[in-house]
Amino acid sequence: MQLEKTLNNPYAHDYQLLIKNILNAPIYFDPNQEIVYRSDKRFTYATFKNRVHRLANMLTAIGVKAGDTVAVMDYDSHRYLECYFAIPMLGAILHTINIRLAPEQILYTIDHAEDDIILAHTDFLPTLEQIKGRLDIDAFIVLSDDGKVPPTSLHVKGEYEQLLAQSADTFDFPDFDENTRATTFYTTGTTGLPKGVYFTHRQLVLHTLGALSTLGSAPKQGSFHQGDVYMPITPMFHVHAWGLPYVATMLGVKQVYPGRYMPDMLLELIDKEGVTFSHCVPTIMHMLFNSPKINEVNLKGWKVMIGGASLPKAMCKEALSRGIDMFTGYGMSETCPILSVAQLTPEMLALDDDAQSDIRIKTGRPMGLVEMQIVNEQMQPLPRDGVSTGEIVVRSPWLSQGYFKDQKNSEILWNGGYLHTGDMANVDEKGYIKITDRVKDIIKVGGEWVSSLELEDIINQHAFVKEVAVIGIDDEKWGERPLALVVIDPSKVISEKELLLHAKEFIKKGIMARESMLLKIKFVESIDKTSIGKVNKKELRKKYAH
Amino acid sequence: MQLEKTLNNPYAHDYQLLIKNILNAPIYFDPNQEIVYRSDKRFTYATFKNRVHRLANMLTAIGVKAGDTVAVMDYDSHRYLECYFAIPMLGAILHTINIRLAPEQILYTIDHAEDDIILAHTDFLPTLEQIKGRLDIDAFIVLSDDGKVPPTSLHVKGEYEQLLAQSADTFDFPDFDENTRATTFYTTGTTGLPKGVYFTHRQLVLHTLGALSTLGSAPKQGSFHQGDVYMPITPMFHVHAWGLPYVATMLGVKQVYPGRYMPDMLLELIDKEGVTFSHCVPTIMHMLFNSPKINEVNLKGWKVMIGGASLPKAMCKEALSRGIDMFTGYGMSETCPILSVAQLTPEMLALDDDAQSDIRIKTGRPMGLVEMQIVNEQMQPLPRDGVSTGEIVVRSPWLSQGYFKDQKNSEILWNGGYLHTGDMANVDEKGYIKITDRVKDIIKVGGEWVSSLELEDIINQHAFVKEVAVIGIDDEKWGERPLALVVIDPSKVISEKELLLHAKEFIKKGIMARESMLLKIKFVESIDKTSIGKVNKKELRKKYAH
Repeated sequence: MQLEKTLNNPYAHDYQLLIKNILNAPIYFDPNQEIVYRSDKRFTYATFKNRVHRLANMLTAIGVKAGDTVAVMDYDSHRYLECYFAIPMLGAILHTINIRLAPEQILYTIDHAEDDIILAHTDFLPTLEQIKGRLDIDAFIVLSDDGKVPPTSLHVKGEYEQLLAQSADTFDFPDFDENTRATTFYTTGTTGLPKGVYFTHRQLVLHTLGALSTLGSAPKQGSFHQGDVYMPITPMFHVHAWGLPYVATMLGVKQVYPGRYMPDMLLELIDKEGVTFSHCVPTIMHMLFNSPKINEVNLKGWKVMIGGASLPKAMCKEALSRGIDMFTGYGMSETCPILSVAQLTPEMLALDDDAQSDIRIKTGRPMGLVEMQIVNEQMQPLPRDGVSTGEIVVRSPWLSQGYFKDQKNSEILWNGGYLHTGDMANVDEKGYIKITDRVKDIIKVGGEWVSSLELEDIINQHAFVKEVAVIGIDDEKWGERPLALVVIDPSKVISEKELLLHAKEFIKKGIMARESMLLKIKFVESIDKTSIGKVNKKELRKKYAH
Repeated sequence: MQLEKTLNNPYAHDYQLLIKNILNAPIYFDPNQEIVYRSDKRFTYATFKNRVHRLANMLTAIGVKAGDTVAVMDYDSHRYLECYFAIPMLGAILHTINIRLAPEQILYTIDHAEDDIILAHTDFLPTLEQIKGRLDIDAFIVLSDDGKVPPTSLHVKGEYEQLLAQSADTFDFPDFDENTRATTFYTTGTTGLPKGVYFTHRQLVLHTLGALSTLGSAPKQGSFHQGDVYMPITPMFHVHAWGLPYVATMLGVKQVYPGRYMPDMLLELIDKEGVTFSHCVPTIMHMLFNSPKINEVNLKGWKVMIGGASLPKAMCKEALSRGIDMFTGYGMSETCPILSVAQLTPEMLALDDDAQSDIRIKTGRPMGLVEMQIVNEQMQPLPRDGVSTGEIVVRSPWLSQGYFKDQKNSEILWNGGYLHTGDMANVDEKGYIKITDRVKDIIKVGGEWVSSLELEDIINQHAFVKEVAVIGIDDEKWGERPLALVVIDPSKVISEKELLLHAKEFIKKGIMARESMLLKIKFVESIDKTSIGKVNKKELRKKYAH
């Protein structure tokens, strides 16, 4: 095929999609807009811009150059936001270390990512000291909330604020190829070693535009607009806090960074700073709802996108009853991450809370530029009937091209030219996708697929249930059958048998596989979690399946 | 500088920013959403998608292949929207012919663009017959509103609807390089021959995302969101109707195409179809305000972006008094086109209509990813003080890289690595840009710059003035002095002297160059316009300057 390319004009500027270009609009807009850290520190966007330039000068002075990898260990902070920009803008790679991993795993990711320098909050110095002898790295910068550096055996180059103050506030950021790697981090799956994921400047800029064009263009519900006040409650080490700090910066809105998560502090910040848009996993929301302080603050109009795990219907209804606009966002580490959002159409907003919740807890509709298909095992698209279930596979301009130094898993991820999410779902005639299970969490009962997620949702709706996880256990007759591990509110009394009868009533009414009736229930003290707070089904299966 | 590129995974999908990908989201969203033509014809998005596929099959059957140029001559229609997608999606180039040009100029652009086939509305067959003998083209498709093809000596392949009906409704659109040319059209400047501008798939997709992220994310005023009903009142041959049909399609909103512009029909469509978002030049708005029908329709809540010429303050105030949300969008043929939008901050919306109008008529603030500078002749950025005046130069990912087969003008356009807009402007501390004149329309009085635009705005505010254009005329003492050519409402009585005194009162109060007081006024019957309705100052200077 013969195609005509752009005519070549050597005088024209060859615009690359670089992270530095995200900064063009907001700083132009209102240089007095604020970035706040725990209400303790306040910066204007103009100061933020200067600090990004100072950070670039500081890192360059220490010897960081394009192609190097700079790791950060911090809570959600203004400093982290500065690193989100300055490090990739230098042509270096930002490694956002998962601070909740065990020291051995942290060591593995630092080695595997080939980090050259680490910026670490004072809280994480002990972890680094523990693995110091085996670290091929000898440059640390300390991030300190009070300006003090505790005694440490690490080779510290200095404290962040002091070094910034010594650096010039203008830096001439270079132009380079938009396909240059900008960030890397490690997925914390429940199987195998952590896998390194990476994203380029182009991918991050396009994800920012894509998220903005979908979240921004909602008429009202689920919108993220120029008048909002933003606070992430998703760790910034985790898929760039869903990419939303980049979106917030491009929007030029007030941003609030809460540091280490403490429920009362989070609620106080929402109240005091007037936060209107956040995002978090259900576990965090659960903590907030259980904080006594929740009844002292007005959360009306607070928009919260829930992701990372499925949003329980009971939680969504409680949120709506408090005037919170809660809805699902869907994605994964490999997808930058956002792929779809459960925004409601104007007609759906006329429904009552219960009916709205059924839609808000869905996986939602794909964002612009995202080609999302539900396919069977032969990769054929399934009908939009709300029943036919297959795997979600995707194409979009912000998907990880593979795992760092892991050709085998990269091939598996992209089998057949589509990225495999590993999530089983159906899609209704209005285009709303609903995840029914992880491919690997599907329970096969007598040859039929039973969704552990749907069973969890049913049991969760009982008022006495605090938490639930459903796994498949060995069964001679059926091969597998579903077992629900349930944590009951200690102040309430109910038997396993009573809860089972309750659940079966719901199963009968639903459109689930009949084999779901083979459910068993077992009460437990607590449910094992992964480092980022997801239910660890691998561990649960090890304990209870055999 | 050593930079790490994306790791190479041959299994991963190499996503290109292609126009076909704009179609992913909306069709998924709501296949029952409507596309309407003059209230006569209604299509769902699902049908639209099928028609795009049919059109691709139809063109392929006729022999169109990747790299060919397909020209269209039509009013704003559903057919044109189908061509916006199907032609570039084939890898071919869409040439949007300016139907208002003289036949000789149309011939020039068809030749220069190297068109291979022309799709023409029945109204334009006589024009084509006139130039037929000199056209190196022998394939025409007729676009007919009533299905009939009038007698013609042209070599017609058939009628659009009939050919569509004969074509299959699935086409496998290929993937290709995003830097492939997608569209071309000709700028109708007031000097020299028409210049060919062209845009690639990547540029059009990024312009769509950029416009969406800025227009979409407005909290309320000036927003374009998923709940809107869209109707263009800018010709679709002119810079892709400002790129907004692509934006509307990506948003998945109801779209209304008005065909040939007739004021009463436009007002009726707004009313009947519930149109909430449009865009046009001031001339069209003037026609609508002068239509008797305007008082029969409710225009409250109608959002109108004005561009192509500066928005007169009096027009803006009249719009606000009718409940219309009117504001400026800025750009030019070479910029795809949108660069900036005069959206108001929440605090500005608390101002009265008069004060709001002062902001709404400004050039506005740059969209995301647009680097817009006001520079002096040495290309140094000027301070944001609302006074210092220089040329607007820009960088963004959707700027024309040059003119087709015109290296000299391409170099001038990109002198110094920035695209030169030729517009003189200042910028205030809040980042709002205000154009004071075209570089070439600046009047040099005794060595001082006098803005013709500011003088026009002042005279326009007098209630008896229908239209005004200010040019520089020869003057022995001053070199040049300003002359206002004014069309007065025929039902009103005022002398040139009275109007001059009125204008001078305003000039005294303003912060304009003192030399503006040397203004002269001359009443005229009408003011010369270019083919797209802009004031033709070149022609006016020829008539009045010497």
